[in-house]
Amino acid sequence: MSTIAFLTDFGNDDWYVGTMKGVILGINPHIQLVDIAHNIKAGNIFEGAFALMVSYSYFPKGTVFCVVVDPGVGSGRGVIIAKTSKYTFVGPDNGVLSFATAQCKNVVVHKLTNRKFQLSNTSNTFHGRDIFAPIAAHLSKGVSIKQTGPQIKKYVQLEWKSPDVTGKTITGNIVYIDHFGNAITTIEKKHLKKLQKKTGLFVKAGSKRKIPLYSFYREVKIDSPLALIGSSGFLEVSINGGNAAERLNLKVNDRIQITG
Amino acid sequence: MSTIAFLTDFGNDDWYVGTMKGVILGINPHIQLVDIAHNIKAGNIFEGAFALMVSYSYFPKGTVFCVVVDPGVGSGRGVIIAKTSKYTFVGPDNGVLSFATAQCKNVVVHKLTNRKFQLSNTSNTFHGRDIFAPIAAHLSKGVSIKQTGPQIKKYVQLEWKSPDVTGKTITGNIVYIDHFGNAITTIEKKHLKKLQKKTGLFVKAGSKRKIPLYSFYREVKIDSPLALIGSSGFLEVSINGGNAAERLNLKVNDRIQITG
Amino acid sequence: MSTIAFLTDFGNDDWYVGTMKGVILGINPHIQLVDIAHNIKAGNIFEGAFALMVSYSYFPKGTVFCVVVDPGVGSGRGVIIAKTSKYTFVGPDNGVLSFATAQCKNVVVHKLTNRKFQLSNTSNTFHGRDIFAPIAAHLSKGVSIKQTGPQIKKYVQLEWKSPDVTGKTITGNIVYIDHFGNAITTIEKKHLKKLQKKTGLFVKAGSKRKIPLYSFYREVKIDSPLALIGSSGFLEVSINGGNAAERLNLKVNDRIQITG
Repeated sequence: MSTIAFLTDFGNDDWYVGTMKGVILGINPHIQLVDIAHNIKAGNIFEGAFALMVSYSYFPKGTVFCVVVDPGVGSGRGVIIAKTSKYTFVGPDNGVLSFATAQCKNVVVHKLTNRKFQLSNTSNTFHGRDIFAPIAAHLSKGVSIKQTGPQIKKYVQLEWKSPDVTGKTITGNIVYIDHFGNAITTIEKKHLKKLQKKTGLFVKAGSKRKIPLYSFYREVKIDSPLALIGSSGFLEVSINGGNAAERLNLKVNDRIQITG
Repeated sequence: MSTIAFLTDFGNDDWYVGTMKGVILGINPHIQLVDIAHNIKAGNIFEGAFALMVSYSYFPKGTVFCVVVDPGVGSGRGVIIAKTSKYTFVGPDNGVLSFATAQCKNVVVHKLTNRKFQLSNTSNTFHGRDIFAPIAAHLSKGVSIKQTGPQIKKYVQLEWKSPDVTGKTITGNIVYIDHFGNAITTIEKKHLKKLQKKTGLFVKAGSKRKIPLYSFYREVKIDSPLALIGSSGFLEVSINGGNAAERLNLKVNDRIQITG
Repeated sequence: MSTIAFLTDFGNDDWYVGTMKGVILGINPHIQLVDIAHNIKAGNIFEGAFALMVSYSYFPKGTVFCVVVDPGVGSGRGVIIAKTSKYTFVGPDNGVLSFATAQCKNVVVHKLTNRKFQLSNTSNTFHGRDIFAPIAAHLSKGVSIKQTGPQIKKYVQLEWKSPDVTGKTITGNIVYIDHFGNAITTIEKKHLKKLQKKTGLFVKAGSKRKIPLYSFYREVKIDSPLALIGSSGFLEVSINGGNAAERLNLKVNDRIQITG
């Protein structure tokens, strides 16, 4: 029993994701359907690419990812299928797959041109249901990527802005605010190792100038801010038991600086 | 492996939908459970009926739809099962199934009276868990509709208000605002064909008097309004890359007019 | 095909629940994954324990419950597995399982110490993915609780504050407000039986002094308040067709009194 995992900006309120699943079950009824997230901000390709990058590797080998953050639906943008050593990704050619595929090995990308893998009536506005869901279902059943269309070498890559690292400071930015109000940044563990000082480090973020850098929430009192390497491997600004984004007024794209 | 699809107004916050699924898995563990939507506005039968109508046909043959928008729970309203050529629908007899069944062939409707298909303790307030989920599970396992209770000829039909169409104008109304802010109307492609003018058509909606009618989002600039036939087959008022309901102040029941 | 049921405070917006499911499917691909709820208020152990208590018994025998409301993640709090006659519960040792296990028979509790049932790299902030999901998956595949770690006799029990009952009044409090605005209280049917008066009972709640006690919503007019025993077996303050919490300004912990 293989898995199709969904990541979209369709929200949880309408019937859109449900109909995608209906379409898939008509093609492959013996499948695990897993929602990664459907509340990527409408049309926010970067956020979708980030969410995919930090989640895909926890899925079993053979998982097909059906990623639909597709503000260009109905325009000329292509549909691509990326096959890697372990996974298959389906999405619009707008960069939403690019952070994940950049981490994968043996990536082969094809452009979907074979119309036999789409619904016979395709709308102009909902390719998630009419194109992405059926191709994901066919791929999960063993259809070869070679049957989907020609291999391509060029496809859209989003830019990931790595932090500026000197021996004294690291300057990055916030890329995602999660449900708990944790502010996830571009700064990784490997960057911290380049600082000359190893202890007594502080983070400047939002209205707060001296947020201590620790490893566990418990190292600060309840309701106190800290920064730590979070579950996605990136530095997060958090409040132990509280909502850092609200309390420290943090927003996506805010600058974050670590100094000794 | 067959499918039960859920459409309710129970929201995603409480344990209500989860317990329905638990009940079903106790009866039929080998089933695909798919959420269509759970955020139908509380008690809004029309909205539930509309969401079902525009989604059911994408599910595989044999799907059982468990539809619980049930403001009359605990009153005398009946529970009905509608079997069609391809599907089985379960819901309260309040019209919530009626837009979907009106489109189906060979519709046979029975009233649920056989108590052996419900939980032994039924609450007065949550028939989704105690009555609708178990009957859906039994039907998905192959229980015949004839075993559920007597066939009935009359069951509640909601009224669908078709647009007024003349050779010069079409006047309809908004029936649903989706997650992206698209305003879905009662106007269909077939109505457009009756207009004498075929091009240069405009839509009046909300504060906006001259919204152009096109086929693709890309035909207007980013942030500009347009109207187009959406993925459900109805005219939608949209903004390319934006939220039309918010920006044009559109609400359900608002009048929409197309003129040349 | 057995079931893993999830109850967390991770919300539905991020990739957190999805990655837990991905981890599980890597260990046990032939499983039913059911969401009970993911919008328990962040870190609210009592609310999680209550939601589990009123939902678990509707799931089939053999279900593994993966309960992650875990404000102490990364602190010294333990991870426990509770096996009962019918179910297996996995969660942090903070009381979140305790209302459910208090109702179960033949409860045996072990502390998770065997590290072979967790991911090889565990984060300091997301044990749902790294510890709770994998142990739940292994248990669903038949791993014995004895393999997880030593049996323990003491584990955290939350306090449930039963209502004060005299022959004339019952005084309890609100423990949960649901999606419909129903205010669920600590008062049960068995408490009502102890009142000398059996009819003409009224509830004082929030701004309202004389809310009638009935059995069905239909016993009051649309938009009128009533109290009734709800689907979880507790007295609920409701409005027929409306939102009681909003309209009567009810909040969790508010005092509720029944008198004749």
